[in-house]
Amino acid sequence: MQHKNPKSIAHEKHEKEHTMSIAEVRGDVDYEAVIKEFGLERMQPMIEKMKAAKMKLPVMYRRNLVVAHRDFGQIFNAMINKKNFAILTGINPSGALHFGNKMFVDQAMFMQENGGKVFIPISNDETYVFKKAETLEKATENVIEVISDMIALGLDPRRTHFFVSTRTAKVYELAVKLSTKTTLSNMKAIFGFNNDTNPGQIFYGIVQSAHILYPQLPDQLGPCPVVVPIGIDQDPYMRLVRDMAERAGFVKPSSTNHIFMPGLQGGKMSGSKPETCIYLSDEPEAARKKIMGAFSGGGASMKEHREHGGNPDIDVACQYMKFMFEEDDKKLGEIFANYRNGSLSTGEVKSVLADKIVKFLKDHQKKREKAKPIAEKILANQS
Amino acid sequence: MQHKNPKSIAHEKHEKEHTMSIAEVRGDVDYEAVIKEFGLERMQPMIEKMKAAKMKLPVMYRRNLVVAHRDFGQIFNAMINKKNFAILTGINPSGALHFGNKMFVDQAMFMQENGGKVFIPISNDETYVFKKAETLEKATENVIEVISDMIALGLDPRRTHFFVSTRTAKVYELAVKLSTKTTLSNMKAIFGFNNDTNPGQIFYGIVQSAHILYPQLPDQLGPCPVVVPIGIDQDPYMRLVRDMAERAGFVKPSSTNHIFMPGLQGGKMSGSKPETCIYLSDEPEAARKKIMGAFSGGGASMKEHREHGGNPDIDVACQYMKFMFEEDDKKLGEIFANYRNGSLSTGEVKSVLADKIVKFLKDHQKKREKAKPIAEKILANQS
Repeated sequence: MQHKNPKSIAHEKHEKEHTMSIAEVRGDVDYEAVIKEFGLERMQPMIEKMKAAKMKLPVMYRRNLVVAHRDFGQIFNAMINKKNFAILTGINPSGALHFGNKMFVDQAMFMQENGGKVFIPISNDETYVFKKAETLEKATENVIEVISDMIALGLDPRRTHFFVSTRTAKVYELAVKLSTKTTLSNMKAIFGFNNDTNPGQIFYGIVQSAHILYPQLPDQLGPCPVVVPIGIDQDPYMRLVRDMAERAGFVKPSSTNHIFMPGLQGGKMSGSKPETCIYLSDEPEAARKKIMGAFSGGGASMKEHREHGGNPDIDVACQYMKFMFEEDDKKLGEIFANYRNGSLSTGEVKSVLADKIVKFLKDHQKKREKAKPIAEKILANQS
Repeated sequence: MQHKNPKSIAHEKHEKEHTMSIAEVRGDVDYEAVIKEFGLERMQPMIEKMKAAKMKLPVMYRRNLVVAHRDFGQIFNAMINKKNFAILTGINPSGALHFGNKMFVDQAMFMQENGGKVFIPISNDETYVFKKAETLEKATENVIEVISDMIALGLDPRRTHFFVSTRTAKVYELAVKLSTKTTLSNMKAIFGFNNDTNPGQIFYGIVQSAHILYPQLPDQLGPCPVVVPIGIDQDPYMRLVRDMAERAGFVKPSSTNHIFMPGLQGGKMSGSKPETCIYLSDEPEAARKKIMGAFSGGGASMKEHREHGGNPDIDVACQYMKFMFEEDDKKLGEIFANYRNGSLSTGEVKSVLADKIVKFLKDHQKKREKAKPIAEKILANQS
């Protein structure tokens, strides 16, 4: 396996093709095969349980965007029995956040509403050792940007524990403890290091695990279930941390695996490729242009589309509606049906979507400015 | 090169032989060859310079126990010109300190008297990842013991910056910065890692370098010369940190290399082998017994010794007098001469030495108790 930055495996450039299959729009991931290969559990039965328990589910659960999990049962039980549990979603401050990142925040907020304590490790160390920032200082400066974005996305700073990896002594301390629970050869098998790998990259595999187990420290929640929403490709790291957790006397953490929000041109979304994503910092009218130029799943001509219809499962605008811009399941069903029968065109969907996105960004960017002083305070108070 | 804990390379068990050469008493290190192989500078010209500058030199400089260096010139210049410089000597809190450790403290105090700021990194992480303590907690508890010992040995806590590796966020932060300045293959060449090495051991090679560059951080002294007294075998780590220092914009640190104080049975002294050393925590009369049973360089019988004399260069009691228990050069010269001509026996030297050590330990252990609350405070105030 080639070495990859854990958070970027799913973010490689994918050449635009004129026609695309669903798998291609989703970034060439064969979810069925991966679930089987990794030995993951399917999420569907858990979603049924949550529905039966009358939980108000976010779109990602209602629409099967979360497809698999490990040990989610302990999280469900904690929610139902009002026991301590945490949700943890790390962020790599390598640049502006985009809509792909929003999915993680949305899941965190759902868990928070259901009694989970939210932990957000900010891995400025990862950004630097994987050379996504020229200096560690630049990565650390960007922490303010990502915290501001996350607060503007809805995370209540009073109920969310943000911690910056190099500014929190207990992260390194915990990583030291975990480091004796594995070996270089095991790390190589998971991360694929070679001789040019720098030692910071190797150790970051351990630090990432320390982030995940941090909520279980005695001065945090103590031993308790923790759930980590991740892309399905990141499961090998979950297996590493679960294994180390057991050896170090922690509760083995759970994970949920969601499918990838497609990039603007189909294929994968990448924060380092502006043509693939809309950043939360994009100028709203520039974002509108990006949407209008997105990959379409419609007929080759308007005439053909009206006659034969299009495929909403590969149409980027339809998919963005499904992932986050049309909350109402009935309305979404109508959009998909009309797109499929040809009475609704890509251009029409894009136009509605673009209006929604422009409104979202204007609103978000105002909230973001308000959140900035709070974010600055959070960074200054790290220890 | 086999992987070795940097601070323990020189500390391997050495089988006792009935007769020993000087090299054997000194732990089988051929200093001449090592100086040549590593490309070190000889210390003698620097010692002459210090003498010419009318510095009051400790025994280790007067008696050529410090044999080599790298870049000591910048330290000498800083002393002479009253410029900022630091002396740094790390301590691995894996157990009670012994007289071998005292040499480092003595050098630190000499530099402190000559204007150097003393930094003592305490590597509880090293103790744990190299399995010299069962848990990180036990290694951290032992921090109080080693700080107490170091204060009792004479380090003024108001002028000494003790920092505990896992409790000082800036250590990990600096290690992250340095980690991109080398590669796994370079680390392997220096430390000899294999597939069973744990990632904490790999990263500790970087953390150790972060300790050495810590005095140069902006909130400490800023860029300045730093000298690290080390055993001659540790030079490869100095080359690593000097190389990384240059790439990361720090002043390249200097080092001095001293010869090893022999173990009680000749060969090497090891903190993990009670039969090789006297601990600062040894019950004084137990220490007396250890000395009386130490390896002798005298004749096979008293008659033979009186006739042919003995060799003080391999007699452990004579060596201990030379290393630290006879401050007066004239008196030491007499002891060595009389031992050599047979008029002074091993038993007589041991008896004088044992009295000195008993007195030293009684005094030290009182000071140590007094220092303990200060040490506890230092540990509690780490950040």
